Amino acid sequence: MPSTIRRTFVVAASLFTLGGASLDAQATPLASWNDGPTKQAIMSFVRATTDRSSPQYVAPDDRVATFDNDGTLWVEHPLYTQAVFALDRVGAMAAQHPEWKTTEPFKSVLARDDAAIEKFSESDWEKIVAATHSGMTVEQFNDIAADWLARATDQRWKRHYTELVYQPMLELLAYLRENGYKTYIVTGGGQDFVRSFATRVYGVPPEQVVGTAGKTTFTYGPEGKSQLVKAPELLYVDDKTGKPEGIHLVIGHRPRAAFGNSGGDKEMLQWTQAGNGARLMLLVHHDDARREYDYTPDTKVGTFSNELMDVATKNGWLVVSMKNDWRRVFPFDP
Amino acid sequence: MPSTIRRTFVVAASLFTLGGASLDAQATPLASWNDGPTKQAIMSFVRATTDRSSPQYVAPDDRVATFDNDGTLWVEHPLYTQAVFALDRVGAMAAQHPEWKTTEPFKSVLARDDAAIEKFSESDWEKIVAATHSGMTVEQFNDIAADWLARATDQRWKRHYTELVYQPMLELLAYLRENGYKTYIVTGGGQDFVRSFATRVYGVPPEQVVGTAGKTTFTYGPEGKSQLVKAPELLYVDDKTGKPEGIHLVIGHRPRAAFGNSGGDKEMLQWTQAGNGARLMLLVHHDDARREYDYTPDTKVGTFSNELMDVATKNGWLVVSMKNDWRRVFPFDP
Repeated sequence: MPSTIRRTFVVAASLFTLGGASLDAQATPLASWNDGPTKQAIMSFVRATTDRSSPQYVAPDDRVATFDNDGTLWVEHPLYTQAVFALDRVGAMAAQHPEWKTTEPFKSVLARDDAAIEKFSESDWEKIVAATHSGMTVEQFNDIAADWLARATDQRWKRHYTELVYQPMLELLAYLRENGYKTYIVTGGGQDFVRSFATRVYGVPPEQVVGTAGKTTFTYGPEGKSQLVKAPELLYVDDKTGKPEGIHLVIGHRPRAAFGNSGGDKEMLQWTQAGNGARLMLLVHHDDARREYDYTPDTKVGTFSNELMDVATKNGWLVVSMKNDWRRVFPFDP
Repeated sequence: MPSTIRRTFVVAASLFTLGGASLDAQATPLASWNDGPTKQAIMSFVRATTDRSSPQYVAPDDRVATFDNDGTLWVEHPLYTQAVFALDRVGAMAAQHPEWKTTEPFKSVLARDDAAIEKFSESDWEKIVAATHSGMTVEQFNDIAADWLARATDQRWKRHYTELVYQPMLELLAYLRENGYKTYIVTGGGQDFVRSFATRVYGVPPEQVVGTAGKTTFTYGPEGKSQLVKAPELLYVDDKTGKPEGIHLVIGHRPRAAFGNSGGDKEMLQWTQAGNGARLMLLVHHDDARREYDYTPDTKVGTFSNELMDVATKNGWLVVSMKNDWRRVFPFDP
């Protein structure tokens, strides 16, 4: 984990809403995409699958498009937003957990020891996520996440995380929906975390968010009212092979189009491509240090390895150069 | 398990399709429901939640209705259809499993020993379902189930199982959809099994079927093509407390209306009712021996106990008397 994760426990603000324009019907589809082979390939695919006279026509019920979230729809560097959220929650919950002052990994988080946090193992992160994402009802968790997203800002742009979404991808979501595609998010991130903002930010409702899911427990709460409480155990991890598995579980259709940006998306794109008829597979390549980030192939967050590039090339997947293919990166860009 | 499960390994027929009329827009909604308080309560709920001037108005995005399947949408006596399917599959797969001739519970199934089958434990059934519902790709399983449903017939009516659906409930599905409700099936049965016919029979697409789900495994099959293979382990059981948990997992909305017929649906209805605003909870009571079945309170298939009746009464849930509330039971009834 990089050391730029110094966070402020930020000042409250009212719920931020993206300018509706980004998700409305587009006079010119994909306006923030530069003209070129990538944009052409996307539009050819959509035309071929929606034109009734096309041999590659796809019935509306089968028009399913799946999008990874971190690094595909919004910024994931230097650290996944949900990880920043979890670290902040450790601070917010510390008063109820005096034992955390002397117990790792919580001790390092509370001491804001970035060097230690950077070295956290998978198991350390699991402990932090389990502790901060359980013990409340599903509605309470949704409110906690929405409240945090309305207040927290990132260090580089000083903006809410929900502003750090890619304008070309918002246009792609809208363009696919205008053409009868049902757009799903399929994320390694927490399903409930992403649901807390996906409707507002992406126009994707809760039932179209597939993510890593924890168990919930049905219990009788105050006044005997039944409730669902988030439990500290994982039900499944929606990453790598877990992505096609999660898609089958929640969606039950093989996608016609799949969009990702890292090794965690490889199996989703492979499974998409293994279906019959026209299919669209696309990876976003972060190569724009000026406007966003230029990942090295060995970055630990959103790894796009040389091996993945070979798989993409060999299989004819579209690879989007953020630098060359995108006229604009963020909705707030000029 | 009752002893009436003598099955024929039936003659092929082409895919049976319900008369479109059952699912089309209805000139008179709920025509197969007798006039009375139950029908009135359903229609009052729908009016109150869809009339913009009503204080109980519900926005279209939040109009979610969940339906149990076995005993609520189709016949479950004397034995769940999926159990009949699993027993048939043991027969069909026996040549590849010579060891089954001497291994229980398969031995009893192959010997068509109804007395033994009737005494099968939960664990026996799990073995049978695991053996017959795994080892193939998800597409192959879908084809196997659809093919079986197109051929198998029940013993009492000599009809395909997908004909043994309740006409009043088909009308209720259609009526809710005409009023902007998204209709989901939430079943203790296998998600993939129910998906294989839900679109055709109920107009409910795969992504709106929530059920007991087995794990799947992403692998590279013939020619390196990626595929999802059904594994013999359960991911979760969508029954009792598992129903609200499954609803949160797959749908992410608390239902506005929930429909069931047995103890397995209690928690789904309780969780529905615990939400704010107008909610509709309904249980189908099987009290019609002449046209369908009259369950005793201690039936093992679709148990509607006296305790459940008390819960329903105390909480103001609608209890449908099949005998008194339904003018017609099946689409093929005169």
